[in-house]
Formats: sequence, structure tokens, C-alpha cells
Amino acid sequence: MTKLTRFTVAPLHAMTRRLADVASARLAPDLVITGARVLSTYSERIHPGREVWITGGRIAAVKPSGAAKKIWPNVAIYDAAGGVIAPGLVDPHIHIESSMVTACAYAEAALLNGTTTIFCDSHEIGNVMDVAGVEAMLEDAREAPLSIFLTVPSTVPATSAELETAGGDLTPDKIAGLFDRWPEAVGLGEKMDFVPVTMGDERSHAILAAALKRGRPVSGHVYGREFVAAYAASGVTDTHEAIDRDIADDLLDAGVWIFLRGGPPTTPWHSLPQAIRTITELGASHKRTAVCTDDRDADDLLMFGLDWVVREAVKAGMSPEQAWSMGSLHGATRFGMDGDIGGLGGGRRADLVLMDDQLKPQCTWYGGELVVENGEITGLLDQALSHRYQYPKAAYATVKLPEKVKLTPDLPAKACTVNAIKTALPGITLIHDKVAIEPAKDWPSLFARYGLCFVTVIERHGKSAGNVAYGLLKDFGLKRGAVASSVGHDSHNIIVAGTNEPDMQVAIAAIKDQQGGVCVVADGKVKALVPLPIAGLLSDKRVTEVAEEVKALKKEWAEAGCTIPYMGFNLIPLSVIPEIRITDKGLVLVPQMELAPLFE
Amino acid sequence: MTKLTRFTVAPLHAMTRRLADVASARLAPDLVITGARVLSTYSERIHPGREVWITGGRIAAVKPSGAAKKIWPNVAIYDAAGGVIAPGLVDPHIHIESSMVTACAYAEAALLNGTTTIFCDSHEIGNVMDVAGVEAMLEDAREAPLSIFLTVPSTVPATSAELETAGGDLTPDKIAGLFDRWPEAVGLGEKMDFVPVTMGDERSHAILAAALKRGRPVSGHVYGREFVAAYAASGVTDTHEAIDRDIADDLLDAGVWIFLRGGPPTTPWHSLPQAIRTITELGASHKRTAVCTDDRDADDLLMFGLDWVVREAVKAGMSPEQAWSMGSLHGATRFGMDGDIGGLGGGRRADLVLMDDQLKPQCTWYGGELVVENGEITGLLDQALSHRYQYPKAAYATVKLPEKVKLTPDLPAKACTVNAIKTALPGITLIHDKVAIEPAKDWPSLFARYGLCFVTVIERHGKSAGNVAYGLLKDFGLKRGAVASSVGHDSHNIIVAGTNEPDMQVAIAAIKDQQGGVCVVADGKVKALVPLPIAGLLSDKRVTEVAEEVKALKKEWAEAGCTIPYMGFNLIPLSVIPEIRITDKGLVLVPQMELAPLFE
Repeated sequence: MTKLTRFTVAPLHAMTRRLADVASARLAPDLVITGARVLSTYSERIHPGREVWITGGRIAAVKPSGAAKKIWPNVAIYDAAGGVIAPGLVDPHIHIESSMVTACAYAEAALLNGTTTIFCDSHEIGNVMDVAGVEAMLEDAREAPLSIFLTVPSTVPATSAELETAGGDLTPDKIAGLFDRWPEAVGLGEKMDFVPVTMGDERSHAILAAALKRGRPVSGHVYGREFVAAYAASGVTDTHEAIDRDIADDLLDAGVWIFLRGGPPTTPWHSLPQAIRTITELGASHKRTAVCTDDRDADDLLMFGLDWVVREAVKAGMSPEQAWSMGSLHGATRFGMDGDIGGLGGGRRADLVLMDDQLKPQCTWYGGELVVENGEITGLLDQALSHRYQYPKAAYATVKLPEKVKLTPDLPAKACTVNAIKTALPGITLIHDKVAIEPAKDWPSLFARYGLCFVTVIERHGKSAGNVAYGLLKDFGLKRGAVASSVGHDSHNIIVAGTNEPDMQVAIAAIKDQQGGVCVVADGKVKALVPLPIAGLLSDKRVTEVAEEVKALKKEWAEAGCTIPYMGFNLIPLSVIPEIRITDKGLVLVPQMELAPLFE
Repeated sequence: MTKLTRFTVAPLHAMTRRLADVASARLAPDLVITGARVLSTYSERIHPGREVWITGGRIAAVKPSGAAKKIWPNVAIYDAAGGVIAPGLVDPHIHIESSMVTACAYAEAALLNGTTTIFCDSHEIGNVMDVAGVEAMLEDAREAPLSIFLTVPSTVPATSAELETAGGDLTPDKIAGLFDRWPEAVGLGEKMDFVPVTMGDERSHAILAAALKRGRPVSGHVYGREFVAAYAASGVTDTHEAIDRDIADDLLDAGVWIFLRGGPPTTPWHSLPQAIRTITELGASHKRTAVCTDDRDADDLLMFGLDWVVREAVKAGMSPEQAWSMGSLHGATRFGMDGDIGGLGGGRRADLVLMDDQLKPQCTWYGGELVVENGEITGLLDQALSHRYQYPKAAYATVKLPEKVKLTPDLPAKACTVNAIKTALPGITLIHDKVAIEPAKDWPSLFARYGLCFVTVIERHGKSAGNVAYGLLKDFGLKRGAVASSVGHDSHNIIVAGTNEPDMQVAIAAIKDQQGGVCVVADGKVKALVPLPIAGLLSDKRVTEVAEEVKALKKEWAEAGCTIPYMGFNLIPLSVIPEIRITDKGLVLVPQMELAPLFE
């Protein structure tokens, strides 16, 4: 069994003498990548005619091309053939769970994109499994052929037990415990309850204090220029939610690092082109900006990786040297790790990318091992990926549903007003549509008349007496059957939308059977299913397999007529985004933060 | 008693709610500095019409001018009258001992220059008093009205017990202990034995490992482009000894932060104008460069402070915004403290400077307290400075000399060759001059014939049987009497130069009497004396008094005819700089690292 993890490379303190020996040419390197141009993220220049000397998985030195061969004619050589060698990319903010794969599986996609280090916030699994989930993912991360650090989930649950039933409750004490037990817990994850934070909420600030007291930086998530000052004053020092030029500018001057987020261009996640204008239009220095991916569907991982985000930064006006620095060194610096990653300096990990002039990665070395060559994973990586971390049994048993549950409400007998949830592209904001309805003979005729369908949330953590909440979606476009998911932000209860109870029951049964998943059902049959048996959030397969399953799901999703994508659908229970949401407790009016009846 | 120290301001984690309250205007600030332009070290721009809201010694927010007054008509206001407000300067590398004052006393000069944080390497007191000296200075630093962090002395002794007798021996274990006991020991100080480091010396690397293992960065000191790769590979990540463009360029690309050192323009310490050309000529990014002072005579502290160095960077071609960032944020970032200092971000310490357009500081606030106003210290600071840390008794008894000691060698009876130490400006390198001499009737006629005078080193740590070594200086220019010092890098044995034994005895007696000092003697009388009773290195007076004493000394020094300045004289025993030195063990030939006789 080939083991390739972050720990395959010894820490720098154990290797300085060997590194000095190689750099001084007293000892031959293990590997020399020669004939390269090298991109210095430190000085932001590309130097021609260089080679990189590697020993024990670290960079001993960068020398003029050909230097090693002259000293050791038989030294192991990799010919870069004039390509550009740069440090592996560093993603300062991502959620692995969004890709519905494990950390071990995620590594494959990351390395194909030239990403060798990620800072992940395991917020979702924390919402389902509390500390146990976070720690399982940390174990998973330790087994992965990728450097994975954690920013500890800071806002679990997202709201309160009055508005939703979550599986996790990460108190300040639990968060402190995670910091104290896990050295790779290098920061506090996105403190997304920015309104309570700026209002001085006691629990929120106790969580901030748990991190700050330990010298751990705090990552943020804030909308609205009016909140910036108080949010920064609360000790938050980065955000990836700078969605436009002006808030990005405010945040930067308030001392907050900006992670410019790139997402598939058709999604609202792609905020980089707007936010980067603080640099390109307002003349701010780029030294405290990085790029990040945040969330990705499994099938988007390869097309829209961090390398793609870097290229988007170039498209927006940055030089390739600046953009690659924003993709590597800057994130490393933000987390105080620039002595180990993010550049081709002496003693750094040999996490390297060989790419063309368009910054398209061809080869990746992780800790000095060639893991991607000409855009394909190597046998070494393939072998390493075949042995992935096995999550504990409890992680495979998190969908706790009642034996029998009615998934649709009773048909109203008289005229009334429906507090409907109106969906609209891009799928984030949901409109509170008060629809006055007249009685109808059955649901189908009512749905046809008003453009509605069912949406139901079922508590799945076994923490309630079988909470079920009914709602109605407007304009969701579902033509037939049902769609359902055990991913339903942030509490991840089961969400199912449908045109009829039987298909909805089939969908729920499929999810229960797999202990998690996303599916499309029509005419009593499961048309597509992505099983997510780990915490109801993650597949245990490799990323390529999951990507195929997701592609098939998306095809059926579109054919069912759904007007918003799956990534929007699973946000329908997220009771912190306007205007109306549905949780297991019922309909939530977000501005008022209170529950509302379906019919009134 | 007014207490004003680093600890007067509570840590951020204890203050986030209060800061959020003020930033949100729910609570009035303690102080508002209004009508200012603010210099953002984050975005490198100056914004007009701003005010800074301060609470509990920290920055709550930067707002448009006039905002606070509208909400709280009686809020405490300081009118900046259109001046530029910027974060206090951060000096990433200095030796307090070079100024011959205590940390508490140093604070006064720093604050007058707009410097509010320093990273000091107490290498000299470590050489005299080992761990006890370093810890006494740490206590001193804790009492100072200045933020003082330590980079732990890494190279004590500078060479070995074969070549000199030092008072200290900082082993890897002792260094580890300092890191573990003192949270303000944030890094390893300049690892100046760069040849042993690059050669893989075991003790040197054990010291590096003690720091790296604890996540503490390592500061460096290296000359010679041929050493850069192996030095960087050994884990060193900054240096202030990048003395020219090309080595600065090499170091930067090897992943080493560059601290551009500014010194009085007539000294070789002023390497900034050369090294900065890596940016101004070779196009390197300035993001990993800072500015520093390294060493200063007490009387030069005010004229050539870090603010002056920043202005030199502007003169060399940087914009004021870039240069001030290099003087504040960049040093903070290098030590992972940019969340607390180095910028006007929310939650940061209110360490502020108000200055004119030429970046000349007028006012300084330290932790929100006005300590310098219109170039003068305030009553508050004056009071704080009147209560300085009292060093332990042992620190006042470090000059342990034999009862009686002969300070001059016997006159050679026959022709021979003298291994003379030839001094030359600027005073750093000393030339090994083999002078063939004919016998003379007495020393004065020999001196007159060959341009010589005595130089003698006496062991003063009480660690030998009264070691005395004799040498002869050539071209030192001493016309009469003697000059002597208990500062004699790095072991700080007593060095005395003279034309005759009686005056040399008077000089030694004066130093012994004061338990340390520098003096000029003529005709049996002490003409000038700077008493240095603490470890034989530091005065216990305020910096202004010491500056006056040093000025008086320099005047007598020049009148005595000395051709190199005091700061060069006290390097005569520093056996790591070419070509020939004298320690208590005798003459040291540096390239060979071996002892040589005076006459052969």
C-alpha cells in the first residue's frame, strides 16, 4: 500500500541539515526538475533557465538549469521542457462537503488543478454530527494525499433551536477543545452570523474569543457595508463574501484579507470579477487578497478549480505573477504558513506545478512526488487514492426518520392565503409570495392554477418527535414526480419537493435506504440518485465516480423541469438568507426571524 | 504612578464586544482623532476626511470626519488638522543594547520617532549574562511603554571557547526554555554563524530546530551570494544583512523576507539605498520587504529613527504609502501580528502616528494614549518613564577583573614581525598587517615610527585565570592617553587602546569602578565617560541623558585622534569579521579561525 499524505514529508525542523547539504551540493538531490522557467511568488517575476533541487519532499534550492547534472551526472532529472514551475495552489477557503466527497477523494480533483493545500471549513458535517463529525473529517484529512487544514466551524447551528433542529451544537467550549486537540485547526471558520456578531451577541463573541485567545485568526462572512466596521472590530480578519467592489474596498481598509471567490460563471458565487475592481479600478494593493473556490459541485471541480480562478484574475487585469501569488503565497501568508508553502523558497515543501503560459497545470508534485502528469493522475496517486479513510459506523447512520410520515398537507377546504416560497434564478434569495387561493378539487388542479408544488422538510437527526413541515414552492417548475435531498443547509434535514405524495415517498425511501443522498423520482421510479451515506452529506466513492453521478442527476433534474439548480434547492431550508425558508419547524420569515403558517 | 505598558491595553479577545458596540455607535468612543487623512497600509492609499474611533486603547473604526460629533456632541476629540494618521512603526530587527540604554529608556526615543513596536534581539546581554540577562531584559521590556517582542539570541557565543571567553553559552535547550517560558519570544534572533549553518553544524541546526519545532520563525544574517541557497534551506526566513541589490534579490527569491536597514548615512550600516534596488531596478514586489534600524548610538536614535529610514525608502523611489507599509504592516505580517498592529484595521491597538506630508511624525498615541505631541513627550509619558525597571543586583556586578593586571606587552628586544591590526574606515573590516619592526628604545619611538598603539583585551566574566591579550593597532590615530570599553562584541570583554600603560590603567579603573562604561583618558584623567553599569552594556539613565553623555564622549574620542568611530572600535574583538581580531585569548586570524602570536 502506497501511503502518501501530508505527513510523508518530514517537518522542516527535522530536515534542515539535509537540506543545507543538498543546497550546498555536498549531497545529491532526490530529484531535479530542470529546464524550467520559475515563477517567484515572493518577487512576482518569472525567471528563465532554472531547475529545482528536491530532497526528502522539500525544496533544497532553485539553481541555474543544468547545474545538478554537472555535479552528479546520474542524478534523477525531470525535464520541464521550458514550462513554468510554480508553487502548488493554496485554497484558503473551501467546504469539502459541497462537493459531496470525502477529504481523501477531494484530493484527486485538487491535485489535478494544481492545488496542494486547502483550508476547509467542515461546517456541514458539524451541523449533522457535532464534534464527532468534525473530528472524523480531520482524520479523513490526515489520510488524504493533500495538505488539508481546518478552520473550525464557528456557527453551528446557523440559527437557533426555535427555528430549526440541527444535529450539531458547537459551543465555545467544544470549539476550544477542537483547537486544543488538533494542531491543524489553524483558524476559526466563517463566522456567518454577522448580524449577531455586530450586535455583540454573547455566544458569538465567546466563540470569537476561543479562537483569538489561542492566536487563531478568524474567517468571516459578511454582507452589507454598514456591518463592515463592527464586524472587523470583532476580530474577523478575512472574508470570501466581498461580493462587489465597494464592500471589498471597505473590508480591505478595515484590515480584512479578501479572498476573491471564483465560481462557475453562471452562478452568483462568481464574485471575483466584481470584487477585484478594488484593485483594478480603485488602486488598492493586491498584497492582502487571495483567491478561493468556497463551494463546488463534484462535476465542476475539474472545470472550475482554483487554477481556473487564478486565470479569471488574470482575465480581470492582474499579471500572471500577481494572480498566481494570490492563488498560493497570499493564502499561505494569511495563515502564517509562508515558511512551509506558497513559494519556491528553500526548505519549503516541494508542492509544485508545471504549467503552460496560460497557467494551465500539466503536472503536479505533492511533497516531491509526481502525482499528476500531463493532466492525468499517476499510478502512484491512483494507488494512494484507492485506500481512503473509512468513516466510523455512526457516520453511516445519520438519517433517522420516523417509520411512516405523511409528506403532504391537507388540501385547504376554503379560500385562504398561502405563504408560498417563490424560487427564482440564480436560486439564492427566495421570495415570500402571498398567494390568495380559491378551493380546488385536488392538489393537481390547484398546482396547475397557481404554479405550485409541495416542499416538505423532515427532521432526520432523531432529535424531535418526528418533525415534518409543509410548504409550497411557486415557480419551481417541477413537472412530475419528486426531487429530494439529505443535504439541506445548514441543519441538513431532509428536503423533498414533489407533485404527489407517492413519488415523494419513493424519494424519501431511497434516501433512507442509502442513509443519505440526492435523487430525482418520476412515476414511482428513482431516475437518478447520488448516494451520500456519510452523514447524509458525502459519498464514499472517488471524485470521478461522484462527478459522473452528479452529471446524471443534473440531467434528470433539468428534465424534471426544476427551474433552480440543485445547489439552490438545498439552500431552501437555510433560514439566514431572505426572504422565506422552510425548516423542520415550519416556514421561517427571515427578516422577522419567526415562524409563519402555511395557510392563513 | 502612571503605568503605561504593552499590557495597559487588554487583549483583543477580551474586548470584541465593546469594540463592536463602539463601531456600531451603540457606545461612545473614549477618543476620536478627527479631521485626518488616513494612510491605509493594507491598500496602500491615503484617504481624506476620516476620523479614528478609539476605545480601550484599540481602534473601533475609521469613519468619515465629523461622524462621532453628530452622535455624541461631547465626545473627546483630537483635531488632526488635516495631517496624516498612520499606524505606529514596527521595527522588525533591533538590538536595544547598541543604544546603551534599557528597554524602558529606549521606549522614549522610539515613541518620538513614531515607532510603537520593536522586535529586539538581546544578543549582547545574553553574551554577558546568559539566560539571566535575556530574562532580565524581557522583564525590562514588559515594564516599558512600548511593545517589545524578542527574537531569542541564537549565536552565543559567536565563536567558541577556544577563541574567546564569553559570559553566556546559549545552548539549544536553554533557547527552547526561553521560547517555552516567554510568549513574547516570537522568533529566533539573527543566526549569524551562517558558515556553520550552511555547513550543517550540529549545534547550529539544533538551535534552528528548537525554534522551527515551536513554529517560531528564524531571523538571519548572511553575507555572500554563494551561501544564500543553503542558508534559506536551513529554515531562515528573514535577513537585515542584504547589503546590495543582487544578494537582496537572491534572498527574496529564496523565500527570505528582506529588512532594508537604514543607518546614519556615513556608516556602512546604511545598506537600504543599495538593497532596495531589487525593487526599484529589478522590479521585485515590495510585499516581503520591511525596513529596520538594527543598531543605533544613543545620540543617533532621534535623528535616524525608523521614521527616517521610511523617508529614505521614499527617497529611493517608493511611494509614501508603500514605504510606510514597509515600516509598519510588513514587519507585523512577517511575525504574524498583523491582526494586532501595523494598520488602522478594526480591533487593532491604537498605536498611531500623526504626521506631515513629509512623513515626519508630530504626535504618537500608544495604546490610545497621547505620548508625543508636536515632537515633545507628554506629561503622561514623562511620568511613565520616570519609573523604569530595576535590573537585578547581579546585572550590576559583571565586570570581574583581576586585582592587578599588566596592560601592555614587553618591548621586543630584536627585529621581528608584528601581526598588527590595521584599522580603516568605515571600521568594520580590520586588515591583517604584518609589520616588520626594528628594535626601539621604548614604545613611544616604536609607535611613532610605525603608526602603532597598544590594544589589549581583558577577560571580565570571572571565567578565566585573568586572561589578558596584547595586540597592536595600526593607523588608529590615537595621539595620547587611552580609550576603553566594556562593550566589545560579542563576548564583551574589556577592550582598551592606549599609548601608555598609566593612562590605560586609569581607563580600566574607571570602567571597573562603574562596573562598565566607555571612556577617553588623557594625562591620567578621565576626559569623558559613559557609565554602563548594567551588564557593562547599558546605562540606567533616560535616553536623553545617555545621548548627551555619548555626544560628549564622541567629542573627546575625535579629539584623541581615533580614526574609526566608537561603534567600529567595539567591534575589534568580534572574531567573525575579517581579517584579524583580538579576544581575551589572543589575536584571531578570522579566515583560518585560529590564534596567532603578536610577534613572530
